[in-house]
Amino acid sequence: MLTRLEILPVPGLPEVAPGDDLAGQIIDACLHGVVDDSTPVGLRDGDVLVVSQKVVSKAEGRQVIVDPDDPLAHKPLVLQESVRILRRRGELIISETKHGFVCANAGIDRSNVAPDVALLLPEDSDRSARRIRDAIEHRTDTRVAVIVADTFGRPWRRGLTDIALGCAGILPVLDLRGTEDAGGRELHVTEVCIVDELAGAAELVRGKSNGIAVAVIRGVDPAWLAEGSVAEDIIRHPSQDLFR
Amino acid sequence: MLTRLEILPVPGLPEVAPGDDLAGQIIDACLHGVVDDSTPVGLRDGDVLVVSQKVVSKAEGRQVIVDPDDPLAHKPLVLQESVRILRRRGELIISETKHGFVCANAGIDRSNVAPDVALLLPEDSDRSARRIRDAIEHRTDTRVAVIVADTFGRPWRRGLTDIALGCAGILPVLDLRGTEDAGGRELHVTEVCIVDELAGAAELVRGKSNGIAVAVIRGVDPAWLAEGSVAEDIIRHPSQDLFR
Repeated sequence: MLTRLEILPVPGLPEVAPGDDLAGQIIDACLHGVVDDSTPVGLRDGDVLVVSQKVVSKAEGRQVIVDPDDPLAHKPLVLQESVRILRRRGELIISETKHGFVCANAGIDRSNVAPDVALLLPEDSDRSARRIRDAIEHRTDTRVAVIVADTFGRPWRRGLTDIALGCAGILPVLDLRGTEDAGGRELHVTEVCIVDELAGAAELVRGKSNGIAVAVIRGVDPAWLAEGSVAEDIIRHPSQDLFR
Repeated sequence: MLTRLEILPVPGLPEVAPGDDLAGQIIDACLHGVVDDSTPVGLRDGDVLVVSQKVVSKAEGRQVIVDPDDPLAHKPLVLQESVRILRRRGELIISETKHGFVCANAGIDRSNVAPDVALLLPEDSDRSARRIRDAIEHRTDTRVAVIVADTFGRPWRRGLTDIALGCAGILPVLDLRGTEDAGGRELHVTEVCIVDELAGAAELVRGKSNGIAVAVIRGVDPAWLAEGSVAEDIIRHPSQDLFR
């Protein structure tokens, strides 16, 4: 069977504040959010919802007040949220966060928030994804997968891409070990990180400046939809990592 | 305006051999390739075609004969195709290729080829993409973008994702510097590598074992469609790289 995917932006999410019922806001945006005279995206069994880390952090109250006039006021937070500094050049800090992510500035962001706010990553993005997923199932009787996505840089290549910080209801990595290629030989490429590819695909319709925090990916292979965890399945243990 | 994307696998590409007219084969597969009673994907202005590096390398004659009984017979080629070794552990070599890519085994692949063949990366994947694009425009009067994609690992995270080795007719990196966020402040995230996100999205429908070498992505923002080059725009100069 061939997979055909649709990637649909979900408009209509309100500005998210601490304590908000984010799952309810997402349901409402999916069922009622429209642009011009378009049809709402809807919610269907098997949909993969990709949700921006930013609205998850906002709903979970991960805001920290900083001096709005100091562009470096969040730097002490970067150190506080890190367990190890990998590289430092000028103001740029590449560190390993408490969660095990390696990224710039411990994922702390000051864009798309008030000038006196720095926004930390969710404490546990797998848990955040699971809560949204469970709430959607509970309230709409629809079984979806949820990915919490953020924008990370990477070594060697310019430009950023979106990756998965957490997920629920989807396998983070597709394990093809033991699978044969078209010629009957065992595959060299054995593990594909589908949640990172899905997060990046969603970024293409979410963009950075148009305030679209959620995208729906429709049509994924049902075999991918099972319990999974970014923290357990993607983050490479330092002992197996050649670049720490 | 909101972007909605469709990601469509293109069935029907034949086994590709050295010297084949790959552009012609891709056109034929897009216009006539079907599974069951489906409609062919077609070719439309503004489509982004993501083409597997493997079929590009095959058409360009990048096969090298190796001892089929020696699983390490391609290792001398890895060194020959590299300008610098970054890491080495057991049989795994992470190196910088002549093109500037940092990857495992210099991108040399022995899956989905005959047992006595090792397949090298294209010499110039931007040029490969440009040739396919130009041929499609010349023969079908359709202006598409082309991305040549391969599957790479990355530090810190398990699982592989597809990235762009070359492109034509699309900006590799979307430069958002000077763009304001929804609150009117200048964006922190300034450069998004859309060709890598598009390559990864295409992988989701191409898969690794079902022999689908081409996918069409339909619906991308027309503003992204301009001349670009992975080699010039994505590969980070060693002097600006913190991880070499």
